[in-house]
Amino acid sequence: MAVYTEVSDVELTSFVENFSIGNLLSCKGIAEGVENTNYIIQTDQGPFILTLYEKRVKEEDLPFFMNLLEHLSRKGIICPTPLKNKKGEALGVLAERPAAIFTFLPGMWPRKIQPVHCAELGRTLAEFHVAGADFETKRPNDLSIDGWRPLFEKCAEHCDDVIPGLATEIETELDFLEANWPKNLAKGIIHADAFPDNVFFRGDKCSGLIDFYFACYDVFIYDLAICMNAWCFERDGDFNVTKAKLLLSNYRKVRVVSDEEITALPLIARGAAVRFLLTRLYDWVNTPKDAMVKPKDPLEYYKILKFHQAARSNSDYGLK
Amino acid sequence: MAVYTEVSDVELTSFVENFSIGNLLSCKGIAEGVENTNYIIQTDQGPFILTLYEKRVKEEDLPFFMNLLEHLSRKGIICPTPLKNKKGEALGVLAERPAAIFTFLPGMWPRKIQPVHCAELGRTLAEFHVAGADFETKRPNDLSIDGWRPLFEKCAEHCDDVIPGLATEIETELDFLEANWPKNLAKGIIHADAFPDNVFFRGDKCSGLIDFYFACYDVFIYDLAICMNAWCFERDGDFNVTKAKLLLSNYRKVRVVSDEEITALPLIARGAAVRFLLTRLYDWVNTPKDAMVKPKDPLEYYKILKFHQAARSNSDYGLK
Repeated sequence: MAVYTEVSDVELTSFVENFSIGNLLSCKGIAEGVENTNYIIQTDQGPFILTLYEKRVKEEDLPFFMNLLEHLSRKGIICPTPLKNKKGEALGVLAERPAAIFTFLPGMWPRKIQPVHCAELGRTLAEFHVAGADFETKRPNDLSIDGWRPLFEKCAEHCDDVIPGLATEIETELDFLEANWPKNLAKGIIHADAFPDNVFFRGDKCSGLIDFYFACYDVFIYDLAICMNAWCFERDGDFNVTKAKLLLSNYRKVRVVSDEEITALPLIARGAAVRFLLTRLYDWVNTPKDAMVKPKDPLEYYKILKFHQAARSNSDYGLK
Repeated sequence: MAVYTEVSDVELTSFVENFSIGNLLSCKGIAEGVENTNYIIQTDQGPFILTLYEKRVKEEDLPFFMNLLEHLSRKGIICPTPLKNKKGEALGVLAERPAAIFTFLPGMWPRKIQPVHCAELGRTLAEFHVAGADFETKRPNDLSIDGWRPLFEKCAEHCDDVIPGLATEIETELDFLEANWPKNLAKGIIHADAFPDNVFFRGDKCSGLIDFYFACYDVFIYDLAICMNAWCFERDGDFNVTKAKLLLSNYRKVRVVSDEEITALPLIARGAAVRFLLTRLYDWVNTPKDAMVKPKDPLEYYKILKFHQAARSNSDYGLK
């Protein structure tokens, strides 16, 4: 949770005056979000989201994200839509950061995941995949298989402080994944970070997706695997087959999933576990004492990886 | 900045249904605030503030704060007003914490303090002091002179890690303050934490005070001294006499300040510097690596204390 950049009242007022959104009443930093600084601003026309882009998002990628969100909105996907200022531009500069104002999405992310949430997520994720299919820009995924070993090497020497023997375990796992990672699976725009805090609900109905700043062009089922890891494991580490079945079956009602994709899913989920284990390890060993963001526990994803390593067949996942 | 307690969507929905504030649309944790967890909630009637009280506020003090805010609102002071639920109660329970919903105050706190802000603060602080004069409950100030030595003793052994020799310096200062602390100055309800982030403005006009959870019964000019330290020193540590004069002169337009109070103000400001130096030191040495709140720099208040120790007369403060 973080507000990395303070915005002065004077600067903000003049920034907001560039948009046709009424008079600024208030601005409060939102605790959620790790990559960027987000404020909720109130004007006499209602609430909006102000995002300041910090260094973790590459500036040259920002037009991709703006265009993607506009594209998705036009296709009926409920997501934050960037507003254009009076000059017709979505991106501006505020507090020396690239900045944009977005529509406000009603809804809350589910703190306690119920099966119905997984069903809704499956449908929503597939609708998003279908809506993004004709989006032309193909931003590569820096955090897919080719990115893992370099990331591991940056924190390898500290791995064993977290779990003794972890460095060797990860190295063996990377060897395995690199040798077996499937090719030629269906690709398109994926969210790549659809954790529960990025999926809003009103009651039992999904009311939108947020935080597309890992979105990229990669295999669709990598997105499904990330969701399976993030939504279908209980807090004690148990895998909830009911949730996974609902996630997948509702996804398949909207987008056709090939036999190759189903066969590959357990391996892809194993890779997705490594991706989050590595980024969490990296953050864990590189977070200074006075940091604003509390690093997430890498152990959660170590346990998920162990589950996948031990799984014998698709039936362990409720797949067949 | 912190959200200490997560609120589930399900619990929150039923909590909000106890109030007559419309249908819940959204709830986002606010990054600001150190003592409690604050959310901004949107309903179809507009924005509200939801506060969950954490351990740093004593539960037995909560009725004092609720009653004080209601009293001040009745007297025309713009501050968050606790809403009563359908049973007529302001305090409820949410996520196993005492919780309350407040009116939303428009305005933003000033990031760059201008002289006009100090003038407005002076007037507002005095209006608040006058409005609280007939408030009957007299919560003692745990962080006035009697509280400093016990607080110092809890972090004395680590002081010299922050600045070599600091422990001895503080001990000498406490001896001095305890021997010279004035008695019989005018008392009433003070805010005791009116830092810039607790004072809202719209343009040049003060639009309200927030965060009354240090409010207590103590000498009025201790409040003025806290404000002088927090608003009238520049970032480089220089004391801005223009701001201090405006703060005091506008305060005096609303509340009569005696000669004894003016004479005592430099000493009280010295004590107020010690109070924040000590609490910041305490937080600095006691904040674990994975804490959600980044501790504030104690050095800022060490420099302010040094200024007060070196001041020769009231004229150094622009007082006469």
